[in-house]
Amino acid sequence: MGKFDDLRKDFPMLERQVNNKPFIYLNSAATTLKPRQVVEAMDTYYYTYGGTINRGVDSVGYEATLAYEAVRTQVAEFIGAKDPNTIVFTRGTTTSINMIASSFGELIIEAGDEIVVCLSEHHANYIPWQQLAKRKGAKLILAPLNDFGGVTPEGLQSVLSAKTKIVGLHHISNVLGSHNDVKRLAELTHEVGAYFVVDGAQGIVHEAVDVTDMDCDFYAFSAHKMVGPTGVGVLYGKAELLAKMPPTEFGGEMNHIVDIYDTSFKDAPHKFEAGTMMIAEVIGMGAAISYIEAIGIQAIHDHVSALREYAVEQLKQVANIEIYNEHNHSSGIITYNHIGIHPHDAATVYDREGISMRSGHHCAQPLLTWLHQPATLRMSLYLYNNKADVDQWIVAAKQADSFLDALF
Amino acid sequence: MGKFDDLRKDFPMLERQVNNKPFIYLNSAATTLKPRQVVEAMDTYYYTYGGTINRGVDSVGYEATLAYEAVRTQVAEFIGAKDPNTIVFTRGTTTSINMIASSFGELIIEAGDEIVVCLSEHHANYIPWQQLAKRKGAKLILAPLNDFGGVTPEGLQSVLSAKTKIVGLHHISNVLGSHNDVKRLAELTHEVGAYFVVDGAQGIVHEAVDVTDMDCDFYAFSAHKMVGPTGVGVLYGKAELLAKMPPTEFGGEMNHIVDIYDTSFKDAPHKFEAGTMMIAEVIGMGAAISYIEAIGIQAIHDHVSALREYAVEQLKQVANIEIYNEHNHSSGIITYNHIGIHPHDAATVYDREGISMRSGHHCAQPLLTWLHQPATLRMSLYLYNNKADVDQWIVAAKQADSFLDALF
Repeated sequence: MGKFDDLRKDFPMLERQVNNKPFIYLNSAATTLKPRQVVEAMDTYYYTYGGTINRGVDSVGYEATLAYEAVRTQVAEFIGAKDPNTIVFTRGTTTSINMIASSFGELIIEAGDEIVVCLSEHHANYIPWQQLAKRKGAKLILAPLNDFGGVTPEGLQSVLSAKTKIVGLHHISNVLGSHNDVKRLAELTHEVGAYFVVDGAQGIVHEAVDVTDMDCDFYAFSAHKMVGPTGVGVLYGKAELLAKMPPTEFGGEMNHIVDIYDTSFKDAPHKFEAGTMMIAEVIGMGAAISYIEAIGIQAIHDHVSALREYAVEQLKQVANIEIYNEHNHSSGIITYNHIGIHPHDAATVYDREGISMRSGHHCAQPLLTWLHQPATLRMSLYLYNNKADVDQWIVAAKQADSFLDALF
Repeated sequence: MGKFDDLRKDFPMLERQVNNKPFIYLNSAATTLKPRQVVEAMDTYYYTYGGTINRGVDSVGYEATLAYEAVRTQVAEFIGAKDPNTIVFTRGTTTSINMIASSFGELIIEAGDEIVVCLSEHHANYIPWQQLAKRKGAKLILAPLNDFGGVTPEGLQSVLSAKTKIVGLHHISNVLGSHNDVKRLAELTHEVGAYFVVDGAQGIVHEAVDVTDMDCDFYAFSAHKMVGPTGVGVLYGKAELLAKMPPTEFGGEMNHIVDIYDTSFKDAPHKFEAGTMMIAEVIGMGAAISYIEAIGIQAIHDHVSALREYAVEQLKQVANIEIYNEHNHSSGIITYNHIGIHPHDAATVYDREGISMRSGHHCAQPLLTWLHQPATLRMSLYLYNNKADVDQWIVAAKQADSFLDALF
């Protein structure tokens, strides 16, 4: 843990207090803390080469353009995409998936077609498909969940047919941390001639991603869940699919010729990047990827996974706890409840002890229905957490149990 | 100018050099420089309360939510909107206008309807309407331009009819700095029962905006053109119109109930803010508005306007110059060419002298056709510019003239 404890100094948030207690952050599945290196990369942009990109020939704008486009190449390498032009910068995972649904989906889905999702999808990878199906008179099909909340190859196969046009599934679930074998699922999807969309918001955080090997058609993720800034994310799409897709927003810098009554658009990715882009944020995302690569994504995975196993063992010692994803070690997520105590009430006790966690439905209402729970607590670990955090969280868990026990 | 010269120290970019010359920034109509106060507000978010918003009950998330929502109220007050819930945060002007077109536009436009724009619109307020008209079989109608490149009430009236459903016009043009009397244009638009959309990307920068008095239906702008960060902007819409509009993106935090086959959405503005928003950027925009308000928008206007008059007089002393918007003092924009010299070649000379300017079509190709120019130079002034900047620019203009004269 020494190496990882050394990294804690990069995260100024860890120096603050909450309710007069040292701050313990166990909410990284919602958003991660940011290291100085990422914030400073954006400050440097604003303070030294803060021009706009791709417009004209001034030196400052040129520096900004080079930095912005260098991140495109960096992202491509980070996820194993062979062509940087398959990387579209977006506002985040939500925008990325909505772009697929409203551009590619509108293009290929017809009445009677089938779109496959599952109940453990985040709303961002559920509602866009649900609404597309509704608009088009297509059918939304639910792949069955296994005991871990994921979709097995057999499970997917049981719902695939010649009518299937799109399959949209998570890489790692944001509630249960269930891990899907996306490579095999993509293969099965392609066998019926359909397209495979991966919500990678959590997956990109916890394992090395290779979209070429995975052979997915689209992969979407956000920077802010991987020590990057808010307001930026990525849509990866296969070149031949991006080429077919109409742009979803129209504006400056995404077109060749703007005639009075029609416009010819640039090739991908530029046709999808209308107007002034989130330049500082793209540069910040590049710094985030550099930060992660310097540590090593496998090392982060091992650290988080070991810490999670330790946390689960400790939590099992606390009375009246129900854990919903005990065995899903692929991510840092533990989803649980204090039996008989509403998670919002419990979270208040944790917060009093300086601990940030999430309580609620985690933007995955359909899954909570499956769990027969209106809401849960979710603690989630990341590279800057350590055993001391877990121990303090356990102290709070015991307090939550006894405090609320006394109340009722 | 003393007060404004004092402000220059807030902008670290002004301390840099370009090509071994002091850096002179004359490209604020593209994007403005950022003061430390704005960047530091974002850093403070990331370093001290960098949680996500509207999710759960932890103290840090609550602090972030308060800060984010406080900016909504601040923006409402800044533009004279009575209800903070009429303020939607977006990626920028481009996204704001595209949202109007793809949500409200899709809702109300039918075949045969008419949408009125003009040739001096930025692509962001032209192509969305052009493409909407194309999709719907509606007609794109061009309001005639007056000599200043704007639209007069009489000009608009000449194209309005019972078929008009939407009028989309700029407040201040990004190429010519032409200023439209948007209040009067809105009134005329409403007389035929149509809706009035204002591209305020430049307008918000150069004058006090009161959307209630203006009685526009929508007003769109970006933070990055008003000393704010990249990646964030605003869509103001009348409450009753936002209420009717379907969301354009689906995801977390924008819904009440997510059932398996359908979803009920929250009220505006939240139904338009799916997923993790650009939290740091919204906070940065709040700091930008505070910065501008502390100076006073009228004081900024007067400073820029006086400086521009001085610059125009100086430029007229240079040989072989054609100015396209001599009398448009509402903004800091001077659009011109060195006769017989392509603006890209000229801009290279300016750049060598440390001057950032824009050359090209300024994302307004239809207007350039009207000007009978393939491209122009555009210099644009803002609060941090001074007479010394203008004088240095004139030195470069003279060099461009003689240098390129010698070449050909």
